[in-house]
Amino acid sequence: MPQTDIDWTTTEKDLAQAAFEKAYHREVTALVEEVQQTVQEISNLDELWRLHDYLSARRHDIDGKYDYRDSMFLFAFSQLIKEGWLSLEELEGLHPSKRQKVAALARM
Amino acid sequence: MPQTDIDWTTTEKDLAQAAFEKAYHREVTALVEEVQQTVQEISNLDELWRLHDYLSARRHDIDGKYDYRDSMFLFAFSQLIKEGWLSLEELEGLHPSKRQKVAALARM
Repeated sequence: MPQTDIDWTTTEKDLAQAAFEKAYHREVTALVEEVQQTVQEISNLDELWRLHDYLSARRHDIDGKYDYRDSMFLFAFSQLIKEGWLSLEELEGLHPSKRQKVAALARM
Repeated sequence: MPQTDIDWTTTEKDLAQAAFEKAYHREVTALVEEVQQTVQEISNLDELWRLHDYLSARRHDIDGKYDYRDSMFLFAFSQLIKEGWLSLEELEGLHPSKRQKVAALARM
């Protein structure tokens, strides 16, 4: 990986952090709303445990995805874009090579 | 344990099964209602994961508690009575020695 992709300027770090928080807020809000809706349709224990299984999976997923280490930013962003929690346009301000890498990873 | 406590007549088994199902239904209904209420007050991820932790604990508890093996009936009933999902009166029809044992266990 070329040096330009490893170094993050302070501005880029701030931007990355803000983009992360935006995606996080969107995903969490959507999840809470989804759970609030789903739970109203539950009428038996199997359905409740299905919701529990779903929450276990989402918790594992979210805990792993929002990795604030610089070295993981590009992978994390590509994942968030793939899932629709962030758009490439919201990474405007990052070095073009980083955005290209995110775009390429998101297409995988 | 005297033999009378180990042997279950068909009538007793039917009664035990029905009592079990009654307690199960009550507990499940209360849990679903509780979750439906709690979830409406959730506004962030920490609260959602707290609900998830709570469901994990309740699932573990319920899975273990409703043990339909004859040998576990007395322990299971005493637990359900202690927690308020069943009353000793609902075990009317079981051999008096069994009911006494359940009552004693429930007081522990």
